[in-house]
Amino acid sequence: MSRSGIITLTTDFGLADPWVGVMKGVILGLFPAARIVDLTHQIPVHDVRAAAFALLDAVQYFPPGTVHLAVVDPGVGSGRKALAAARDGQFFVGPDNGVFSGFLPGEYVIELNRPELFLPRVSHSFHGRDVFAPVAARLAAGKSLREFGSPLADPVMLDLPRAEKSGDTVRGEVVAVDRFGNLVTNIPERLLPPSPLSIEIAGETIPGLCRSYEDAAGGRASAKAPTGRRDVPARCAALIGSAGRLEIALPRGSAAELLRVGVGAKVAVKPG
Amino acid sequence: MSRSGIITLTTDFGLADPWVGVMKGVILGLFPAARIVDLTHQIPVHDVRAAAFALLDAVQYFPPGTVHLAVVDPGVGSGRKALAAARDGQFFVGPDNGVFSGFLPGEYVIELNRPELFLPRVSHSFHGRDVFAPVAARLAAGKSLREFGSPLADPVMLDLPRAEKSGDTVRGEVVAVDRFGNLVTNIPERLLPPSPLSIEIAGETIPGLCRSYEDAAGGRASAKAPTGRRDVPARCAALIGSAGRLEIALPRGSAAELLRVGVGAKVAVKPG
Amino acid sequence: MSRSGIITLTTDFGLADPWVGVMKGVILGLFPAARIVDLTHQIPVHDVRAAAFALLDAVQYFPPGTVHLAVVDPGVGSGRKALAAARDGQFFVGPDNGVFSGFLPGEYVIELNRPELFLPRVSHSFHGRDVFAPVAARLAAGKSLREFGSPLADPVMLDLPRAEKSGDTVRGEVVAVDRFGNLVTNIPERLLPPSPLSIEIAGETIPGLCRSYEDAAGGRASAKAPTGRRDVPARCAALIGSAGRLEIALPRGSAAELLRVGVGAKVAVKPG
Repeated sequence: MSRSGIITLTTDFGLADPWVGVMKGVILGLFPAARIVDLTHQIPVHDVRAAAFALLDAVQYFPPGTVHLAVVDPGVGSGRKALAAARDGQFFVGPDNGVFSGFLPGEYVIELNRPELFLPRVSHSFHGRDVFAPVAARLAAGKSLREFGSPLADPVMLDLPRAEKSGDTVRGEVVAVDRFGNLVTNIPERLLPPSPLSIEIAGETIPGLCRSYEDAAGGRASAKAPTGRRDVPARCAALIGSAGRLEIALPRGSAAELLRVGVGAKVAVKPG
Repeated sequence: MSRSGIITLTTDFGLADPWVGVMKGVILGLFPAARIVDLTHQIPVHDVRAAAFALLDAVQYFPPGTVHLAVVDPGVGSGRKALAAARDGQFFVGPDNGVFSGFLPGEYVIELNRPELFLPRVSHSFHGRDVFAPVAARLAAGKSLREFGSPLADPVMLDLPRAEKSGDTVRGEVVAVDRFGNLVTNIPERLLPPSPLSIEIAGETIPGLCRSYEDAAGGRASAKAPTGRRDVPARCAALIGSAGRLEIALPRGSAAELLRVGVGAKVAVKPG
Repeated sequence: MSRSGIITLTTDFGLADPWVGVMKGVILGLFPAARIVDLTHQIPVHDVRAAAFALLDAVQYFPPGTVHLAVVDPGVGSGRKALAAARDGQFFVGPDNGVFSGFLPGEYVIELNRPELFLPRVSHSFHGRDVFAPVAARLAAGKSLREFGSPLADPVMLDLPRAEKSGDTVRGEVVAVDRFGNLVTNIPERLLPPSPLSIEIAGETIPGLCRSYEDAAGGRASAKAPTGRRDVPARCAALIGSAGRLEIALPRGSAAELLRVGVGAKVAVKPG
């Protein structure tokens, strides 16, 4: 597989400490032409699942041959394995803890077990710097994936919540809350029943889908949205968000605050 | 016009979600040699005016041929237009909502209406990724501005507050509060009356200008500052800030907290 | 000395204002091939010592010929000098206020006193943009260090706290608290007495060293840790952190919050 020369970074390190910069120094030392893109360093501490969802929405927008490095790694220094993998032209490097569950097992998963490809001295507390950064740099520079170790048959997989259809009803849940307070669900557009439909969350019923945040704000619901319903005014609105999944939004406000819910809140979509 | 290969980003997305990284992925996929610079992603949510001021202080420090991409876009998915423009050798790409008011109409403004230059599928909620990132990438790569659409005669302009001189008095207002709590005004140095002068804000009178924060801290006011005034000790100090405009600072503290004012606070400068 | 083309940035500017981006614009305008790496922009306001420690843990991971630019500069615009320096193949550019105390005096320190190498107009409040960015760009592009000014004999040095050994006891202090609430000390691994040992901090006694955060969490302390001690359960654990120094951690929690201590807290390590 060819390489784009791009390496993305996803961690729970925050930006106050110099650790993200240190990883970049290691990468650029081994692969000076690397172009490094921060996805986020504000994954909640040790929240492997949140990192898995962030990657799910982002990876497809990078050119083939990009290396995605993720370090949300509560088990660093313990017996947990380290891995690199390939899927659909994208590469993944990080701990074997489920952070790449959205993409694995993929076509090829290998366990990182060739220390000569790490930094000379590997600490017990910062494999992002000592193991994953050097491996990502060498992989992005063109080294073959299989040179990094031996095949890993059973990578750890998280049980990511999936939307399910039962009869006419689709059930899912909130998997992320963005900066605007929008509640992003795991219900993809293709699972939705045809209009008219309604969305239930936190005891509220939201009638139909809006086309955009602006439509929701102006009461200009799409032509397909039902009218004259009793349960209007539910002030929140529903729409298909930028990840192609159902999203609950409060126009010019925070749906998360209004409904007092967050990640894990149950959502049901029903016809009518 | 030539191109610098640089694209700056200004958004209200924050850094916790992966959306800024996703935009960079789109840009690098279309223009691998792009060098991307974050101006800020912490514009207050939907605060188009704050983004307009951030750009005003930053654009001039980039080499000619830089593309400035701004996405503070409460109207995304509605009828608001999208634009690209050129002014003084710099390029601008974003929503037609006034975010480039400091630079428009400029020499050439076009409406982005050629969908073949966007991503193949344009969402209703994330034009930063689907419209503006691909346009900025292609523009930075050298494509001619007029190939992106047809001329836009009347771009939306914000009524940015301007300092005004009336007799001997200059009146303006605070347009930004920085991380240090300094109150940055819209009063440019060239409008100020000659020393001695005094500055009124929030019921306080600040005598004269200091040369630097350190001067202000040490009481080592510049030689031109008046002395022996009754209204000392006003503890705040005034100086010409890094953007060349009047700034109110509390040495080693926050002027914003001490005076309990923020963006919009009125400021008057008078002789004597 | 050769150059890596990399420039790192360490400031107390935060990321909400566009100032970091502006510095990058200045750098790329003068040295288009620069690769710029943010170490951190969240140094506490004016905390020169915190910046000095951040650099101490980061510089060694960058390739030789990297330029480290630091702007934590409460004295900007006053009489404080500006400097550039070289040490062990790395370059440093910033105010002469002790921010590079971990690396100076080094092999060569010069005072920046050639204004033709700065921006044409130097403000009194933003030397990061007007002085340090242009100097760093030109230095990273290959200009010889001695062309930037004349030798500086006595750069300002901070009295960084050092761990000290007195008899069997090693005394040091907390010099940083990371995002996870780990208390990072200034006690290097090589100063520690052989096991068994115990660590005293904030009235607590922590028995022995763990190998990793995971070991600490599982009670799987390393084979060398003492057992059957009365003072267990001290819930915090001690280990050698990623910087090679003693660190106090609360597995899956914040040691800083539990112990209610922060930077400056005294730590003693004793045999037994």
